[in-house]
Amino acid sequence: MENTLKNTRIPRATIRRLATYIQVLENLARDGTEIISSTPLAEACGVNGSQIRKDLAYFGEFGIRGVGYNVTSLIAAITSALDVNREWRMALIGVGNLGKALLNHADFRERGFNIVCIFDCDPFKIGEVVHGLEVHCTKDMPALVAENNIEIGIITTPPERAQRAATHLMNAGITSLLNFASARIKVPEHVNVEYVDFFHHLYSLAFNQNRFYGKS
Amino acid sequence: MENTLKNTRIPRATIRRLATYIQVLENLARDGTEIISSTPLAEACGVNGSQIRKDLAYFGEFGIRGVGYNVTSLIAAITSALDVNREWRMALIGVGNLGKALLNHADFRERGFNIVCIFDCDPFKIGEVVHGLEVHCTKDMPALVAENNIEIGIITTPPERAQRAATHLMNAGITSLLNFASARIKVPEHVNVEYVDFFHHLYSLAFNQNRFYGKS
Repeated sequence: MENTLKNTRIPRATIRRLATYIQVLENLARDGTEIISSTPLAEACGVNGSQIRKDLAYFGEFGIRGVGYNVTSLIAAITSALDVNREWRMALIGVGNLGKALLNHADFRERGFNIVCIFDCDPFKIGEVVHGLEVHCTKDMPALVAENNIEIGIITTPPERAQRAATHLMNAGITSLLNFASARIKVPEHVNVEYVDFFHHLYSLAFNQNRFYGKS
Repeated sequence: MENTLKNTRIPRATIRRLATYIQVLENLARDGTEIISSTPLAEACGVNGSQIRKDLAYFGEFGIRGVGYNVTSLIAAITSALDVNREWRMALIGVGNLGKALLNHADFRERGFNIVCIFDCDPFKIGEVVHGLEVHCTKDMPALVAENNIEIGIITTPPERAQRAATHLMNAGITSLLNFASARIKVPEHVNVEYVDFFHHLYSLAFNQNRFYGKS
C-alpha cells in the first residue's frame, strides 16, 4: 500500500493511540481473531468508536462496512504507514539490572527493535558478555554507532549519570533517545527524547488510591 | 502544611507534570542546588514559566518573589499535598527478567514504593527467593495481599498472561494496577490501570526519525 504518513504532521497523542491499537490488534491476532468491527476494537483500546474510525481513516478506506477490520492487515497497514516496520538498531548505555532485563525483552526483537551494542563506564563491566553482546567502553561509542548503523539510544543508567550518557550518545550522532533513568535530560532541539517514567504512573495510581479509598 | 489536594480534581496531565517537577527538583537537590527561580525550573521541566507557576499555585504561596523556590521544601510540599509521601506496599506478578530488575530498582524504595510480595504461576519458580522475597503461588494471593496491606499490583508477565494476572490481583482486592506487559487489560470502572508502554515511545521515536532523517 502506497499510503504513507511520512510527510504528514501526526500529533503525539495520535501516535500513542496508534501504538495502543497495534498492541490490542496483536493481542487479538494471538487469540486467533481474524476480523473485528470498530465498536469492540474501540472498547478494547479504551477509546470511542468515532475516535478510532477517525485515526484509522489516515490509512485510507480500510474496514469493510458491516464486516469490520481484518486484524492482520490492519496491523500491517498501521506499521507500514508509520514506516516503523523495518529493523531499528539500538544502543543501550548502562548495563545494570534494568538494562539487562531490556536486553532480554523478546517484545523488542519481535517488533524489529534490536539492541545491537551495549555500553557502560564501569571498568569492571567492560568486556563482560551479556546476552551475547560485549559491554563496550563509552569512548568507543562514536566508531561503534557508525559501524552498526545505530539510530536509537536507550539510557538505563542511574539518574545522576543520565545526562552524561545522553551526551555520549549525541556526540556519537544519535538523535533519538529513550530514557529509562529517573532524571530529565537537556538536549538540543533536533534531538528527540522519550521518557519511560515509572513514577508519574505510580504517583497517578497513589493519588487516585488516596482519593477513592482514603489514606491507610 | 495543611494544604491537601485529596478532594480536588487534578487532571491527569497535571499529575504527570507534578511527577516531572519532583524528578527535576530531586536532580537539583542531588546537585546541591538549594534555591531555584521559576524560569530555569520551568526550562528544566520542559514547560513554560506560567504553566509551572499555575501548577505550583495549587500548593499555596510558595516561592519567594525575586528569590525563587526552596528545592527541598518544594519537593516536600508537592509530595505531601499529593499525599504520596508515605509507604506504598506493592505486589509484583511475573518474576521474569523485567520483574527481577524492578525488584532491584532502588528508585522505587527511595520514594516509598516497596515491592513486598512476589508471585508467579510457574511451579519451578515458586519457593525461589529473589532479592530476599519468596516467590509465591498466585492461589495464595488473597491471603498475602490482605496480610501485607498491599495497595498496588505490578504486572510483569508476558503479554498473553497479563489479563489473568490482572484478574488475580483484582480478586485479591487490589484496585490499582501498573502494567508493564505489552497488552491492554479489561478492568471494571473502579480499578485504575497505568500502562508502562515501551512501544508507544519507540514508535514515536521511530516515526520522528523517519520524518526528519528519512528512511535508511
